[in-house]
Amino acid sequence: MTGNVTPIRSHATPSLDPMIALVAEDMNAVNATILDRMQSKVALIPELAGHLIAGGGKRLRPMLTLAAARLLDYPGTRHHKLAAAVEFIHTATLLHDDVVDGSEMRRGKRAANLIWGNPATVLVGDFLFSRAFELMVEDGSLKVLKILSHASAVIAEGEVDQLTAQRRIETSEEEYLHIIGAKTAALFAAACQVAPVVAEAGDDAEAALEAYGRNLGIAFQLIDDAIDYTSDEATMGKGLGDDFRDGKMTLPVILAHARGSTDDRAFWKDAMQGSRTSDADLAHAVALMRATGALDDTLEAARRYARRAVDALSIFPDNHARRAMVEAADFAVARAY
Amino acid sequence: MTGNVTPIRSHATPSLDPMIALVAEDMNAVNATILDRMQSKVALIPELAGHLIAGGGKRLRPMLTLAAARLLDYPGTRHHKLAAAVEFIHTATLLHDDVVDGSEMRRGKRAANLIWGNPATVLVGDFLFSRAFELMVEDGSLKVLKILSHASAVIAEGEVDQLTAQRRIETSEEEYLHIIGAKTAALFAAACQVAPVVAEAGDDAEAALEAYGRNLGIAFQLIDDAIDYTSDEATMGKGLGDDFRDGKMTLPVILAHARGSTDDRAFWKDAMQGSRTSDADLAHAVALMRATGALDDTLEAARRYARRAVDALSIFPDNHARRAMVEAADFAVARAY
Repeated sequence: MTGNVTPIRSHATPSLDPMIALVAEDMNAVNATILDRMQSKVALIPELAGHLIAGGGKRLRPMLTLAAARLLDYPGTRHHKLAAAVEFIHTATLLHDDVVDGSEMRRGKRAANLIWGNPATVLVGDFLFSRAFELMVEDGSLKVLKILSHASAVIAEGEVDQLTAQRRIETSEEEYLHIIGAKTAALFAAACQVAPVVAEAGDDAEAALEAYGRNLGIAFQLIDDAIDYTSDEATMGKGLGDDFRDGKMTLPVILAHARGSTDDRAFWKDAMQGSRTSDADLAHAVALMRATGALDDTLEAARRYARRAVDALSIFPDNHARRAMVEAADFAVARAY
Repeated sequence: MTGNVTPIRSHATPSLDPMIALVAEDMNAVNATILDRMQSKVALIPELAGHLIAGGGKRLRPMLTLAAARLLDYPGTRHHKLAAAVEFIHTATLLHDDVVDGSEMRRGKRAANLIWGNPATVLVGDFLFSRAFELMVEDGSLKVLKILSHASAVIAEGEVDQLTAQRRIETSEEEYLHIIGAKTAALFAAACQVAPVVAEAGDDAEAALEAYGRNLGIAFQLIDDAIDYTSDEATMGKGLGDDFRDGKMTLPVILAHARGSTDDRAFWKDAMQGSRTSDADLAHAVALMRATGALDDTLEAARRYARRAVDALSIFPDNHARRAMVEAADFAVARAY
């Protein structure tokens, strides 16, 4: 076990570029739907929603729907509306998250709640969430509606669960994995599963793409949770050490606490309970994470889930789309380096 | 025009009792579904949701679904699940409203946001909202899903619109009616329309019941908005004069402002902008509303909408169910006396 995160780069750093190129044309259609359907006569709605939606973000979840459809050679366009619905659900949860966390930054901009206040942010989230269901109803697949309404309930459960775990130093690795499986991976999985449903690709394809999405989502979240301790604000687009100051029990904390000395464990308890929030405290936390291998092992865990995501694709022919999806999984992990 | 609200009582005060009796058996099934489907492994969810759901409330909206089904002699049970979905949507909006308004009381109890905080209240609202859609998906009617997903989007728009109108003394009667049509009447209308859809009662029955619900919802909201200035805290189950202190532009305010002297108008502007919040200010506001006939005319408007609701039922045979629904409309208005 080393005290530092060892950068391991392949000759070419994995990126999302192949997936972005793969779905570029489809994404134009999805973006048009998003812009069209976030409109409302109530001017504050497109204004607030547009701040977040037009303000960047990778559109990762709808991209997964589109990429999975390419993988299956789906010739139709039904998935465009559904990919927009997925992005609306995601945006609604981001808006509510910002209220829940009292966020100050999101995607490198001031969080919506700071500009328009909590009330409008909550309500515009509700609007986008309802709009997502209207889009699904227009498509008309009860199976898609089932997948995404269930995913939405699971996300909310995961968020409440995370709230309960917050500042609770006893949170276990299992509880943490359950939480991120719900709050993050459920929508990744649903986004991927929507494609084989509309493509009528069968149960095996559905199960495989659900597994790809779920494992990819966990990998992404693990890396995000590591990056919160290792990156800088500009890269993250949100405040550095936010998780630390919010007392979020993420895997790097859980591992560093479990492996720490009595003094270290006291530090972590104080820190998670909010009585250690200075820059020096944060620097000390990162040092402990490095010394105990907590960051290394979080990245290793992410690598394992990313690998599972890749393995789930093995039932599909090795084509352009599959290679882009494999590289997306590599990218999820590579972001940490 | 009199300076006082004149109590006009018929020999028997209209009540919800006939409707409650009409649907009692069905409501037991709905309540069982509500209790069953608000459960979650995440303990905070049933705890918080139960505070509001088990804590009373008239269950008016699901009651309308059940009564409309009786009116149509619908022999099935599909509407039980859908009535529960309607109540979940309503509960989700109440939880979010409490966060939006910073409520202190709801249904005579401390508001959930004060007990569990805004974050949990927002997220449990999201959970119930998702659960509502899961219930609808289980039922499997795309038409019902369309009606209720659209109603949900309209409610959110109405809430944002209301937020925009808050403290804005220029808000017109038309804008106000548009807002309450969206934030309140849309769900009343949808709750009623669900019954003819599952009963396959045809377009005329759907249109009639939609109109009954919509007009009844507007009547209820008009009376609620009047009661906020005339009732006492125990009757309302929430703080007296909350609308006044929140700067909510309701019809009694709009009328009293429009009809006031220059001094009165200055008072209303100050009051709605939040610089007149004392008990004496509230008493002055009520006095102005009585002197200008603003309260009388708000009740008269409610009576008109309640009458439209009753008229919409004229296509149905005059039976037990219809009489209960007519009396519910009379009750909506009679609450003010």
